[in-house]
Amino acid sequence: MRLTDALPRRVRVVEVGPRDGLQNEPERLSVETKVAFIEGLADAGARVIEVGSFVRPDRVPQMADTEDVIGRLQPHQGVTYVALVPNRRGLDRALANGLRAVAVFTAASEAFAQANIGMTIDESLVRFREVTSAASTHGVAVRGYISTCWWCPYSGRVDPAVVVRVALDLVDMGCREIGIADTIGAATPGEVRDLLERLAAQIPLTQIAVHFHDTRGTALANVLASLAMGITTVDASAGGLGGCPFAPGALGNLATEDLLYMLDGMGVETGIDLEKVTAASRQMEAALGRRLPSRYLQAGPRALVPRPGDASRKS
Amino acid sequence: MRLTDALPRRVRVVEVGPRDGLQNEPERLSVETKVAFIEGLADAGARVIEVGSFVRPDRVPQMADTEDVIGRLQPHQGVTYVALVPNRRGLDRALANGLRAVAVFTAASEAFAQANIGMTIDESLVRFREVTSAASTHGVAVRGYISTCWWCPYSGRVDPAVVVRVALDLVDMGCREIGIADTIGAATPGEVRDLLERLAAQIPLTQIAVHFHDTRGTALANVLASLAMGITTVDASAGGLGGCPFAPGALGNLATEDLLYMLDGMGVETGIDLEKVTAASRQMEAALGRRLPSRYLQAGPRALVPRPGDASRKS
Repeated sequence: MRLTDALPRRVRVVEVGPRDGLQNEPERLSVETKVAFIEGLADAGARVIEVGSFVRPDRVPQMADTEDVIGRLQPHQGVTYVALVPNRRGLDRALANGLRAVAVFTAASEAFAQANIGMTIDESLVRFREVTSAASTHGVAVRGYISTCWWCPYSGRVDPAVVVRVALDLVDMGCREIGIADTIGAATPGEVRDLLERLAAQIPLTQIAVHFHDTRGTALANVLASLAMGITTVDASAGGLGGCPFAPGALGNLATEDLLYMLDGMGVETGIDLEKVTAASRQMEAALGRRLPSRYLQAGPRALVPRPGDASRKS
Repeated sequence: MRLTDALPRRVRVVEVGPRDGLQNEPERLSVETKVAFIEGLADAGARVIEVGSFVRPDRVPQMADTEDVIGRLQPHQGVTYVALVPNRRGLDRALANGLRAVAVFTAASEAFAQANIGMTIDESLVRFREVTSAASTHGVAVRGYISTCWWCPYSGRVDPAVVVRVALDLVDMGCREIGIADTIGAATPGEVRDLLERLAAQIPLTQIAVHFHDTRGTALANVLASLAMGITTVDASAGGLGGCPFAPGALGNLATEDLLYMLDGMGVETGIDLEKVTAASRQMEAALGRRLPSRYLQAGPRALVPRPGDASRKS
């Protein structure tokens, strides 16, 4: 078994830093900072970027300026900006702001759905049908996010059959892509394989995106397992922005830099320039006044160093 | 291709925290602190633990007390303590201190060998033959470490043919195990597969241990690639102790906790208790006065949390 034989030649990276990465930042960032961040990521070659959410500002204050952010963005050839929308009204705002892609979000755990979006999974799916129906008439692409696809912070292990059922319903209503999220960063590669195997029996894996959090360090290993199964779309967040509200002090999303370093090293194309992403993350570090957790960002490139007369022993 | 089908049922974890993890710590730790750390790891179930080095104290001051540390360790049924030895004299000290296992260390890059051990690779191999020959007459196991098996901080990409040649020579002289190290934490899974494929053509992979640094976040993905190839011995450092002198501010060894979290999640047995390793690392954090970088150590277990009335949105 040679696990890297079957890897795709190209992976589509969905940049979620400006939305999922920033949404829980307590300190409000300026519109200018967010726009510069997004533009930097677009310049780096990111082709799909989540730029904000049309949700209640009292629920996610950091995303309250999404309209202003979108209004300031330059159009980039081939770049798709995406916003999260909870309902038809959110879609209308996205359309009014010129977006051509949105995402709806539910969960595979009832407890998480209740806590995160205040309704049952089925209630959310009914609501999303209004979104996908209207989006379809406008030719707007809809991604369906499913949170807690492996583990729920409130109810523990999640039944993969529920994930499959929710994913099938989202596909049926017209979602072009399903984002399966390891919201608390708890999944390991065997669990990833098991769920993808079940999904693959019903939905082409080219329609599935994996969204891993690196809370316990397994995100890149989970990506590798996913690619070996046939996944070709991977979410990541520049700098590793994003925390985990369910594990105080823990790290959040898989860092775009770490993902690109691995994919570059394996000869898998993404079209995204690692050093330019790093530059965008450095600007965000300056705005936030702290280092971001991406390991690559901390370590830097694999540059040659001068040979010392006397180095400490390493193995 | 289902990458996790071929995984071993059991992995032997070699705990290198007390040696590779601590060796570059600038602040000298007390013998008591080191002994408590090692005992904690043994109590957790670690069965092979590197406890120190018999090298020149001016080169690695933190390891100057290795004899004192070994002298204070309780014997544990089934636990093998290992020390690094650079030459026959080091072996004699290890024998005098009752050790039954040692490790010698060279490199696959001439530039690194010169900088790290002050001789050519071939000179080091000649010297090691004195070690393995004497060790054999005492029934002492010798591991041969090969540093910079993929990338050298001084000379760049390393020729895998050199790794194979050095490994074969080490096996030929009687090393029971070869530790192949990604010293600067730069390897990615495809490169890992390529080298292991070449090695497997000449040496049983059960005789090869992989030693990854998590400098750029790829260590667990590299472990996964290794296990899929047939590797069954993996090095790790409690808490992720250890830095990278070639990338200031960067993180070091693969954390034992992160490795165990992944292996536990995949149902791969190690015989080591993750929470007890965490407890040993917490003691070391207290002694060093700082947090250690293991992501699992920072995040904690996948425990259930109370459901809030209102949680921020996550995907």
